[in-house]
Parts: sequence; structure tokens; C-alpha cells
Amino acid sequence: MPLCEADAWIRRAEERQNKLTKPPGSLGRLEDIANRLCAIQQTLEPVVRNPAIFVFAGDHGVCKEGVNAYPQSVTGQMVENFLRGGAAINAIAHVADAELHVVDVGVVGPPSQNPKLLVRRVAPGTRNICREPAMSGDEASAAMGVGIECAENAIRNGTTLLGIGEMGIGNTTIASALCAALTDSDPATVCGKGTAADGAGISCKVDAVRRALALHKRFIQTPLDLLARLGGLEIAAMCGVCIQAARSRCAVLIDGFISTAAAAIAVSIDPAVREYLIAAHESTEPGHRVLLQFLRLAPLLQLQMRLGEGTGAALAIPIVRAAVEAFRCMATFEAAGVSETSA
Amino acid sequence: MPLCEADAWIRRAEERQNKLTKPPGSLGRLEDIANRLCAIQQTLEPVVRNPAIFVFAGDHGVCKEGVNAYPQSVTGQMVENFLRGGAAINAIAHVADAELHVVDVGVVGPPSQNPKLLVRRVAPGTRNICREPAMSGDEASAAMGVGIECAENAIRNGTTLLGIGEMGIGNTTIASALCAALTDSDPATVCGKGTAADGAGISCKVDAVRRALALHKRFIQTPLDLLARLGGLEIAAMCGVCIQAARSRCAVLIDGFISTAAAAIAVSIDPAVREYLIAAHESTEPGHRVLLQFLRLAPLLQLQMRLGEGTGAALAIPIVRAAVEAFRCMATFEAAGVSETSA
Repeated sequence: MPLCEADAWIRRAEERQNKLTKPPGSLGRLEDIANRLCAIQQTLEPVVRNPAIFVFAGDHGVCKEGVNAYPQSVTGQMVENFLRGGAAINAIAHVADAELHVVDVGVVGPPSQNPKLLVRRVAPGTRNICREPAMSGDEASAAMGVGIECAENAIRNGTTLLGIGEMGIGNTTIASALCAALTDSDPATVCGKGTAADGAGISCKVDAVRRALALHKRFIQTPLDLLARLGGLEIAAMCGVCIQAARSRCAVLIDGFISTAAAAIAVSIDPAVREYLIAAHESTEPGHRVLLQFLRLAPLLQLQMRLGEGTGAALAIPIVRAAVEAFRCMATFEAAGVSETSA
Repeated sequence: MPLCEADAWIRRAEERQNKLTKPPGSLGRLEDIANRLCAIQQTLEPVVRNPAIFVFAGDHGVCKEGVNAYPQSVTGQMVENFLRGGAAINAIAHVADAELHVVDVGVVGPPSQNPKLLVRRVAPGTRNICREPAMSGDEASAAMGVGIECAENAIRNGTTLLGIGEMGIGNTTIASALCAALTDSDPATVCGKGTAADGAGISCKVDAVRRALALHKRFIQTPLDLLARLGGLEIAAMCGVCIQAARSRCAVLIDGFISTAAAAIAVSIDPAVREYLIAAHESTEPGHRVLLQFLRLAPLLQLQMRLGEGTGAALAIPIVRAAVEAFRCMATFEAAGVSETSA
């Protein structure tokens, strides 16, 4: 939407905020979130309806560089765990009263037979970015298309709040490469320990990212080049969700480092996407803060989480819901017969 | 409970956390919260059941000093607003699926006739701390007793998580006085703008707090002296909730500056209370951080809120629920057939 139109909705929302029975501004970030939802939904009665979390799973060729603490087979094993309800995201999505969708965009090995899985395999994992492009341009576009399809369907079914999450062993290295390229940062400042219990593997990651950047940087002219050469299938899909959500005026909760990298690519493709993004949390991965600053987004939560799976996005849903419900349901000073400030 | 016993439960909980299908520690603060609930409930299957928010309302004689941005009548008007469902806490407690209880511990003027109100008036507001003690020792004890009664009843009805909140025009000045006395801080460093839209009234508050401390400090020997001389009826009631919750092994979410002052007095009375407290958020009142540091508690949320009413406590309930549900419902690596770290 044109920025001036969004600003006009935010001004109208602020006017209403100041009539509600609370000192002006006293709900802090909740007021910003409600105002933002007014602008996104173009109404002074915004709603959080049928929130949906999409967890996209994909594997990464960069695992061959020994960058990961867990074996690559864990991607598929965790997909099974999501489908059986045994992962953190299952518990947190349940608490948030959000529907959870698991999408296989390119896991290595035979796909799960569980009928709850949405199988949309674009490739059997990506290729090793230290040696060749992760994906072809067509593969990257197809994986983005999976996210676009998911967002379209959810929004058609009435969802007004999407959350994105991912599973992919090796993808903190991929997000670090994307972050370094997007923000022109030194890889050493954006690589973190990922899922490892200690920092032992960080130098291996930094080295892999440096080699990948040296190999690909001169071929990267557009955000799509960046996504194809250094990205991941699940990252492309999350990027697609952000693009489609903005087209359909739907808010998106972005999760951790990897989903924020996807959102940053979406904003590089279309800067208007930024207005539809809510940063759910800040993880402990150092590159996450760099990307949030690049996007000029302040996270709602800072709980030292670093799990992914959409867990931070799901955890922020009740906060967005509270922001919107307070805005929509609170009485005004006039209606409630409450005296306004004498100050 | 003896600290060594709590530590043993936390160690057992940590052991289980490390078997769950996530990198160890990757749920960050959620893991701490779940482990803490294990220690409080003495089980490895903690639950958040029937969470209840108690909002205690009381008036303050210190309003005569012109410290407040809103007229004193707003306390009673907001009580009516709570009872009719028009305040922020109504919307947020609803989102958190928490029961809301409103208790009049000493509002000025005729009490609301709404049958939902629990009327437990101890006095018609407190006296002006700049001139005399806010309450007698008997009044302070009676107001604490109101909180004890509320906590006892809720816990008997199956609540495993209490939240405390308040309404009382003038009570940020009272909390500032309590904070300065408890932590031996300069009043200028702990007084904030409270519910005012700007900082114009702060110097008036600082002056009132200085005069009150000068008048009462030499008579304050015990935490109960502090509560009676400088406190408030709603603060005493919240202090009572904390005391009783600890006796009954129930966790308490503390809200903003004022409820944290109440919790700090409870911990001064019985240091074992601290183990049962969860700091829901950090408000923008400068004294709140001072009190959280005094209590050595890290807030879950930092959303620039400064409303009170228990809004921060209610907002944190889904986070506590998510922490506990993830702990209780997640599969172990072994049960899910997920490979453990190779690092």
C-alpha cells in the first residue's frame, strides 16, 4: 500500500488509542502493533483470526562442509516429530491457538507418508554453496511459489495472521551467508553457534561463508540471484509467504534468524513488504540482530531462544492478539464515564 | 521450600530438558520458567491451570500533594470499568484465558454495587504519607489478610498461577517511596512519569517522596512498618497474595512497578517468597528496574508498558503456559527417533 495511506490509518488508530480508558501510550508496543494491524487491514476494527504457522523444511548441501552440530537426517526426523506432535512448535502453536502446517520443500530421503504433511518438493535439498549455486533460478522461483501458494490458501480460508518457521539442518550457515551478503557484514560478526551447544563450530561456519561469498558475490545482481546462489528451499518458501501476505494485506510474524533472512530478501524484492512484517523475537544468533536492524524492525520478545521451527512467531501470537483485542474492546473515557487527565 | 530441595527439582527438570527434541538450552527463558514451575509444584509434570488475575483497588492520601495526573475519582471509575469489561486488563485476561477478580480494598466514595466486585474495604483510602503514616499496623495487616484470603480461595479452587495487579491513583508515588526506602535509592532516580503523558509532575513526586521518607524513615524497623507507614491498601493486599502463594506452592506473576514493590516487601518479610515469583515485564517506570534488580528477577517482557491493572502479568500467562506445555508435551530424542548432536 502507498506509505501515505498506511500513515493515515496509523494516525486514525492513534486518535482512537488516545480515547481509550488508559493513559495515552501506556500500552507501549501493544499500541504500535494494534495501529500497524489497522493499517494492514485498513480498518479501525482489526482482528486476529485463524492464525496459521507454516513450517517449511528443506535440506542443505553446505552440510558437506561439516558446519552442523546435528546429522542431516535430523531434518526429516524432525518433520516426522512435527507431524506426530512431539516438537516445541506443536506445544507452542497449541497454546497460541494457531493452526500448524508442515511443508516439505526439499528434504533429503524419502518423504514422510504422514497425510498431514504438505509435500511440495522442489529439489532433494540444495547444492553446496561452497562449490556451486544452492539452487537454479527456476528452483528458487518454484520454492517461492510454494510459499505463495501456502499464504494464498491460508488467507482465502480467513487467516489474518501468518507465522513463518523452518527446519533445515545447516540453515544457520545459509542465513549467515545471506545476512553477510545483504548487509555487507563480515561473516565473523554474523555467524553464531546455531543449534550447537558450544561455539566450537563457528570458525568452520565463518570459513564456509567466506568461501561461498568469494565464489558467488560477483554473480549476485538481484535479490533473486542472492536467494538462488546462497539460499535454501525453505528460505525461498518463507520469502514467498512474505511477498504474498503483503499482496493480500495480511500481517506476517517472522521468527528467528533464518526466517528473518527470508523476510529481508522479500523486502529487497519489494520494499512494501516491510509494512506487513512483525518481528516476533530476537534470537541469540548474532546475525539476527543485524538483519532486524537492516529491516528496521524491533522484536517483541527477547527470550534467548534459538530453536527456529516458528516457535518465536507462535509465542508472539497471543501478544498480537492482546494488542488487537485491547484496541477493539476497550471502552472510551466518554463511554465509561472515566475522567480524563487533569495534567 | 529449602533452597537445596528447589535446586534438586531444577536439576531434575534440566536433565529432562536436555532429552527433549531440541538443542539443549534452545528454548532460552522458556526452559528456566518450566524448570522453576517444576521446583514450585515439585513435579516433572507442571501445569498452568485456571490462571487468575487479582486486581486490587485502593486510594491514596498522597493525592493531596498534587502528585497525580488524573483526579482521585478515577480509581473508583476504573473499578466500574473493570467490572463492565471495558479496560485493557479485561481484554488481555480474556486473551490469556485467565479469570479476573476485582477487589476493593479501600477506594474513596461509595463502593460499586456491581455483584462481581469483591468488597473488602479496610479503610477509605490511606492517609497522606507526607503528613502521617499511610495506615496503622492493624490496617496494613488487615489489607494483607485480604490478599491472603484471595490467594487461598483461588488456590483451593485449583489455580496454579496467580497474577497480581492494581488500580490506585497516586500509587506510583507510593511505590517510589517504598522503592527508595527498600533499596536505599535517591528518590530522583526511582520516580517516573507514572500515568502522566509527560515528565512535568516528576519533581513534585520526588519532593513528596523526600518529605515522606524524612518523616517516617526513623520509625521503620521492619518490613511491616515500611508497608504501614509508606504503603497502600492494594499494595498490602498484593503482598499478602505473594506470601500466601509461597505458603501454598503456587507461582505468582508480578506485574509492574507497584506490584513489584508489593512483592519486594513480601520477600523482605520472608525471603523464601522470591522462589515463587515470576517477573512478567519491565515497565518504563525507572524504579521498576531498581526493584527487579533488588529481587534479582529478570522480566519476561519489555514492551514499554506502564498501565498496571495486571496487564503485564496477564500478557505473560501464555508465555508461562507455552514454557510448561513444551516441557510436558515434547517428545524425547529417544521416543521420537531423532538423532542427537554429533558435536
